[in-house]
Amino acid sequence: MKQQQQQPHVVLALSGGLDSTTLLSYFITNTHCKVTPVVFNYHSKHSQWEIAAAEAIARHYGLVPTRVDLSFINQLFKSNLLHTGGDIPEGRYQDSSMALTVVPGRNTIFIAIMMGLAQSIGANTIALGVHGGDHFIYPDCRSQYIDHMYEVVRDATEGQVVLTAPFLHNSKSEIVSMGLQMGAPYHLTRTCYKDQPLACGKCGSCVERLEAFKLAQAKDPVDYEERDK
Amino acid sequence: MKQQQQQPHVVLALSGGLDSTTLLSYFITNTHCKVTPVVFNYHSKHSQWEIAAAEAIARHYGLVPTRVDLSFINQLFKSNLLHTGGDIPEGRYQDSSMALTVVPGRNTIFIAIMMGLAQSIGANTIALGVHGGDHFIYPDCRSQYIDHMYEVVRDATEGQVVLTAPFLHNSKSEIVSMGLQMGAPYHLTRTCYKDQPLACGKCGSCVERLEAFKLAQAKDPVDYEERDK
Repeated sequence: MKQQQQQPHVVLALSGGLDSTTLLSYFITNTHCKVTPVVFNYHSKHSQWEIAAAEAIARHYGLVPTRVDLSFINQLFKSNLLHTGGDIPEGRYQDSSMALTVVPGRNTIFIAIMMGLAQSIGANTIALGVHGGDHFIYPDCRSQYIDHMYEVVRDATEGQVVLTAPFLHNSKSEIVSMGLQMGAPYHLTRTCYKDQPLACGKCGSCVERLEAFKLAQAKDPVDYEERDK
Repeated sequence: MKQQQQQPHVVLALSGGLDSTTLLSYFITNTHCKVTPVVFNYHSKHSQWEIAAAEAIARHYGLVPTRVDLSFINQLFKSNLLHTGGDIPEGRYQDSSMALTVVPGRNTIFIAIMMGLAQSIGANTIALGVHGGDHFIYPDCRSQYIDHMYEVVRDATEGQVVLTAPFLHNSKSEIVSMGLQMGAPYHLTRTCYKDQPLACGKCGSCVERLEAFKLAQAKDPVDYEERDK
């Protein structure tokens, strides 16, 4: 008798932004995986808006995300993205001022928690929506980091869990093109770093998003306070 | 004029047990590092006892530890060490039943958080008290894991922070011998996994501790409910 194969099960970080929404669409559309989205609350300035977006996106696919509260990041860490930090810089995503929005250790903390959660619920994959456009600013989005983290996850779980980052070598506009083809619910997403209901259109994160839609020759379905072109 | 060198600053995980207490004594006694002990509360059955121990040990050295609450581990993860898990097994540390007390992802979560904290407060080293005796049960205490995690920390911090595990190849009895030479406050430590004020003397963790003192030809200064020899 043939042994019954376990359904693949992926735990993925869903931030409510473009990349992780496309990642969720990718697993739902192209795989037979069971999907557990995880929404981390590290109490950034835009937390309430991005969490509401993430929950709406999960609901769009009939899923209820696992919420993880990481208050200690806001209490102890240094970053302008946090309530305890300075102002969100405006400008281009590649500007050096954007380094102020790096939250040290964020992806490593997310991956470590998703790994422990995956082992606890019997999932065999953890996935992150990091992409080529993140490499300049964020050291924990680069290939070398992801390669080493892949090995850490394998070691720590004795091969039970695999880390994957399918968009690691894609640009954000390529992600948008893929997402549009898969019908990703971009109208529900939230990208802006500012603590306001409407996306500002001026912070590095908004500027990068608008540029990605432009390069993908598509219209961004969300509204902005100000949109340059 | 000679440039002033920054004082080395180590962030270390202090659990209140033997290994991390010896680690703290090591950095205080043998280095000129500034030391920031971090006490993680992941709401294990023995949390209240080990946290009280860790705080007393930090106080012994005139330090106030940084507390990090990780309630989500107890809420979402599977381990008999947690309030939400089954009974603590008794027997030897190497027994397969001890695997029930593994908290998946624990060290990776601790390292990731200490890394982000180190970057936030300008510390250049993070340290963990893992040792040779942990290798059998805990995959996230083995050399290969630590080597890969070392690289992750280097990548994620662009070389600003280094992970060190000075006892990685020592046995627990060697750690006890070192600690006794350095005057480590072992009378304040807490090792037992059970939720009771007095150490049980029967869980894997107590048994391993008593054995380490015996091998080091020293008397364990803490009291036990039951002590075999």
